[in-house]
Amino acid sequence: MSAADRLNQTSEILNESFQPVENPFKVTVIGSGNWGTTISKVVAENTALRPHLFVRRVDMWVFEEMIDGQKLTEIINTKHENVKYLPGIELPDNLVANPDLVGAAKDADILVFNVPHQFLPRIVSQLQGHIKKDARAISCLKGFDVDKDGVRLLSTYVEEKLGIACGALSGANLAPEVAKENWSETTVAYKLPKDFKGQGKDVDHAVLKALFHRPYFHVNVIDDVAGVSVAGALKNVVALGCGFVEGLGWGNNASAAIQRVGLGEIIKFGQMFFPHSKVETYYQESAGVADLITTCSGGRNVRVATHMAQTGKTAEESEKELLNGQSAQGIHTCKEVHEWLASCGKTDEFPLFEAVYQIVYEGASMETLPDMIEDLEGVNIPVAKHANK
Amino acid sequence: MSAADRLNQTSEILNESFQPVENPFKVTVIGSGNWGTTISKVVAENTALRPHLFVRRVDMWVFEEMIDGQKLTEIINTKHENVKYLPGIELPDNLVANPDLVGAAKDADILVFNVPHQFLPRIVSQLQGHIKKDARAISCLKGFDVDKDGVRLLSTYVEEKLGIACGALSGANLAPEVAKENWSETTVAYKLPKDFKGQGKDVDHAVLKALFHRPYFHVNVIDDVAGVSVAGALKNVVALGCGFVEGLGWGNNASAAIQRVGLGEIIKFGQMFFPHSKVETYYQESAGVADLITTCSGGRNVRVATHMAQTGKTAEESEKELLNGQSAQGIHTCKEVHEWLASCGKTDEFPLFEAVYQIVYEGASMETLPDMIEDLEGVNIPVAKHANK
Repeated sequence: MSAADRLNQTSEILNESFQPVENPFKVTVIGSGNWGTTISKVVAENTALRPHLFVRRVDMWVFEEMIDGQKLTEIINTKHENVKYLPGIELPDNLVANPDLVGAAKDADILVFNVPHQFLPRIVSQLQGHIKKDARAISCLKGFDVDKDGVRLLSTYVEEKLGIACGALSGANLAPEVAKENWSETTVAYKLPKDFKGQGKDVDHAVLKALFHRPYFHVNVIDDVAGVSVAGALKNVVALGCGFVEGLGWGNNASAAIQRVGLGEIIKFGQMFFPHSKVETYYQESAGVADLITTCSGGRNVRVATHMAQTGKTAEESEKELLNGQSAQGIHTCKEVHEWLASCGKTDEFPLFEAVYQIVYEGASMETLPDMIEDLEGVNIPVAKHANK
Repeated sequence: MSAADRLNQTSEILNESFQPVENPFKVTVIGSGNWGTTISKVVAENTALRPHLFVRRVDMWVFEEMIDGQKLTEIINTKHENVKYLPGIELPDNLVANPDLVGAAKDADILVFNVPHQFLPRIVSQLQGHIKKDARAISCLKGFDVDKDGVRLLSTYVEEKLGIACGALSGANLAPEVAKENWSETTVAYKLPKDFKGQGKDVDHAVLKALFHRPYFHVNVIDDVAGVSVAGALKNVVALGCGFVEGLGWGNNASAAIQRVGLGEIIKFGQMFFPHSKVETYYQESAGVADLITTCSGGRNVRVATHMAQTGKTAEESEKELLNGQSAQGIHTCKEVHEWLASCGKTDEFPLFEAVYQIVYEGASMETLPDMIEDLEGVNIPVAKHANK
């Protein structure tokens, strides 16, 4: 998006802000982990600033747990701090922790999903029949919904299960840095649904920019939900590859090479299975190349893969030792992607994704990664028989 | 380039290798710094392996200097080590250090230029009239030749001054890692000239792959000399931006954001001033996105900019303190680029390049970098007057 386009986007919000919407939008965030709490903070800061657009109170659904004999929701609502998942960060007082999933969601005009991938089906089934029919959703989840029939976006899963339009938010956003209000960028993708009710009455790009943009969190809003989601899911597989070469001590050139090959395979995957996704999204948006770079510079997937390379331990063992019960998303995504590609006979066209799968699940040697990526099927540049070295 | 294309490229070399060229190509490398010596090592390893394609001996022109009373060329030719610029790395015995520029170049069929940008004009003028008329060249230099009439590639400069076809080699190649034979990738760009003499008689893509490809140095050969050169020059400006945010302690998200914006401006610059360059080169080739990532993860430009951010010192002072007489290329390139963009009224369209220039030369505050990049001309997302926070 050019500077002029961005200027127009912001100008639209400016103009619109002086024409309050008929009924300010109620926003609820489903999820309260590290990233969920951070996004809740962002959203609640904006709803407090813009009562002409949003209901001030933001509900954040919290899976209730006891912390030293006190309910986590009570701690959040009195101390204004998520002491378990985002300690040390002050939360806005208009952000209300709510242990009742349906209660938090039932009046929401905008639902922001931000839970671990594996919890989504249960949450969605609990919400069925209990939300506004014209609610809109944004998914901050990473991953795919894969079965034998195909690979679906998680936003599509939400749309189909709940019957509401769903976009995606993704970007170069290591949560602790966003929580500390270090400057970063993100991408929000949302396509106006067929039943769009019109400006001032429904969620559109300007409303989403007003909801998520902060001085420290620069938002670009685009249409391409598929591109944003594909990039967000597959980057974790690439990050495992970077962790392997880092663990092998191969240095920055090798890590950059893995990222280059990975970006190419992400684009190819997007074009093959989501042909309406745009190539530009992958190399121009924060959700594309920037998130890939951030994710490959650190984080769980890199750490697990580095540990595997340095100790010879399995992915499972490494996850256990390093992640304290949490998981490295790439470990699961590379399996899903492999199974899907194998089912349609396309593994050869994604040598990096396949190499990562083979290393994690089939005991392939990391040292052969360059050859697996080069994918020259055993053909080497020839050495003439009379070569004298 | 797809796996199939790469396979074809390597297969062509395979086939050709059994049909020796009429006259094996003599190769000379002009330059013997860190990167020059590393590329000389790569090239000499390949000429030794492929006598059907290349003359075994590779000359490396060395600017003669005395090291502890002994000539550097003598040390290199007896110890097979460039003790000054690439210590600790054994060089092939068919690599001959030569202090005589014209002597080293006069019989060469392939000239590989690998000297600091500022030495190029003098070297080229010394070579005029003393090289083979049908020699071919590859430039490993980074930067532009800028004057009031426009911005030219350094390969074009070589072509015009010497009257020989010149391509470019660039990639995610921190020299010490390549010298140690850690795996990396690179891009060689070369367009067959109008006077191409035919396969087996002249330099083509297969010959260049055979000359530069090593098991630890994977080469992709393409046509797009402009794309490779533009990316190689401008990455250093982006790296300064990354150094600023790193020095400010803003973390990985911010650095990734700078790289994303930088990649976009590199593409825009390429399309505007070298419209025959291909967008794909920037996001698919090692010389594009991968080199950007490597350069922004470390190296001189990042170090100088980080130092500026942490100490408040000028670029000049920081270069002096850190680089021991060497220079950070981005400091010069951002000035050249600014002057060129200013002369054609285009600075507004390259907010990151302009911001880096303003910070380095005009005392602009680094802290305002996000706003300068957002480039919204003072327009902020509005806060309604009755907002209650």
